[in-house]
Amino acid sequence: MIYDVIIIGSGPAGLAAAIYAKRAELNLLVIEKAAISGGQIINTYEVDNYPGFSNISGFDLSMKFREHADKLETEFITGEVKNFRLDGDIKVLTLDDGVEYRSKTVIIATGGIPRHLNVEGEEKLSGMGVSYCATCDGAFFRNKTVAVVGGGDVAVEDAIFLARICKQVYVIHRRDQFRAKKSLATKLLSMENVTVLWDSVVERINGEDTAESILVKNVKTEETNTYEVSGVFIAVGYIPKTEVFKDIVATDEGGYIIAGEDCQTNVPGIFAAGDVRTKELRQIITAAADGAMAVTAVEKYLNNN
Amino acid sequence: MIYDVIIIGSGPAGLAAAIYAKRAELNLLVIEKAAISGGQIINTYEVDNYPGFSNISGFDLSMKFREHADKLETEFITGEVKNFRLDGDIKVLTLDDGVEYRSKTVIIATGGIPRHLNVEGEEKLSGMGVSYCATCDGAFFRNKTVAVVGGGDVAVEDAIFLARICKQVYVIHRRDQFRAKKSLATKLLSMENVTVLWDSVVERINGEDTAESILVKNVKTEETNTYEVSGVFIAVGYIPKTEVFKDIVATDEGGYIIAGEDCQTNVPGIFAAGDVRTKELRQIITAAADGAMAVTAVEKYLNNN
Repeated sequence: MIYDVIIIGSGPAGLAAAIYAKRAELNLLVIEKAAISGGQIINTYEVDNYPGFSNISGFDLSMKFREHADKLETEFITGEVKNFRLDGDIKVLTLDDGVEYRSKTVIIATGGIPRHLNVEGEEKLSGMGVSYCATCDGAFFRNKTVAVVGGGDVAVEDAIFLARICKQVYVIHRRDQFRAKKSLATKLLSMENVTVLWDSVVERINGEDTAESILVKNVKTEETNTYEVSGVFIAVGYIPKTEVFKDIVATDEGGYIIAGEDCQTNVPGIFAAGDVRTKELRQIITAAADGAMAVTAVEKYLNNN
Repeated sequence: MIYDVIIIGSGPAGLAAAIYAKRAELNLLVIEKAAISGGQIINTYEVDNYPGFSNISGFDLSMKFREHADKLETEFITGEVKNFRLDGDIKVLTLDDGVEYRSKTVIIATGGIPRHLNVEGEEKLSGMGVSYCATCDGAFFRNKTVAVVGGGDVAVEDAIFLARICKQVYVIHRRDQFRAKKSLATKLLSMENVTVLWDSVVERINGEDTAESILVKNVKTEETNTYEVSGVFIAVGYIPKTEVFKDIVATDEGGYIIAGEDCQTNVPGIFAAGDVRTKELRQIITAAADGAMAVTAVEKYLNNN
């Protein structure tokens, strides 16, 4: 049996692709790694920026997406792709149980995970003050004091964004200057409610039910200080889940699959949708749009092959 | 008073932009032409491809978007932009009541309208069998007989898409060959349940509550015939609402504002989001994603200026 399209991943991109592919009556299969759909958003305490749903939990939004796909009778299987290869034009996937699946096209929607600090309190308070997305969660910290960890473009942009919303922003960066673009760094340093803690790392995030403070160590002086914060925004990178696809499709230095708005990778019939592809804004809404776009690209491919 | 951003249009792109801009605490204004938000989707009978909402009316989905923006206390005004000019870096809009608004950035999300046939029955049955979007509405016509009007890429792609879903597809084209790409045309002509009526135009769409049949005239022989169809998909072009912006921002030959995935036009600080920009897939989900992306681009611009 050869599918028209196999969708790998069941976060917003994968589920949106499933909805579009079912409505296009393609013969499709969705492979999800976890036994539950939603990807990263399952663990998001509150989502307020997917238009149409104001203040919904990530879990509930996941369920809405999944129900939508289920209503269209989408076929899901649970499994992890362990091998990915081409057999002529056919894409061949082998799952962890050894079973092989064959398809004319593949949409890679495996997403990724934000890089963690791996410090005490981080995991426990994730979604309860600890966030990996300022655009997503910043608005929940209006007039509060927050910390941003990191020194690249994303961290500095996040800090500028948060400084407009929050009372006070600490930026904790392990070096003595930002890696971010100069214009961004200059802007940030000009903001009155921003304090940069150079040469510093977060040692611990304290809090019972929500984040309350952070323990910060200066790596040069070894001095430690505690700062009271309600939010900790960690922006130290993102790890796309592309390991198994890397030998087949082109990725950039960060591991993202290189694909433009049309989701087309360098291999005809293989598409990348959502956080896993090279794109500027990684949000639920942009991932879902990618899912729709990737199916349109799949249809075009099938029409021409 | 100078706004951070003025959003022109309150369809999915404009409302998504409003949601993102309010959450970013930008000082913003939304200008909507009609006294009701939603743009084209207000008149859509049923929407089944905006992930998370299965089978919702376009009107209800519009209201969900609008409520989301209202909850964030977005400022809306009703008016039509009659003049658009630059005063240095400031964008100046004059509305139909003569009032001028000034902003550092503008997101043009004015959308567009599908070109109509302007035949009897078309308007009355719009949304009740008459559709301008096969991707959106095709799934509602499973195993039914439908007609597609047009001969370009979109019409032929729509017809291929529909032929997979529907029992029978008539394609009505006023010429004796397609303008569409050869590969697409070949694919369509190879499909068993497709009949092309060359040199033909639709003269009338018949039906009481829903479309029932079309009267087709051969423009060479003047012969007329009636075909029983449940759906009529009109794909004869799309008119973006860009008249008032054309002298300031670059548009393509179809009138679309030239902008990539980042929504950036050729003028710094002016962004185009949704159906109005050059893009491949015009859907609610992709328009909403544009709204989010445009605000991110606005923030970047404001950070650097």
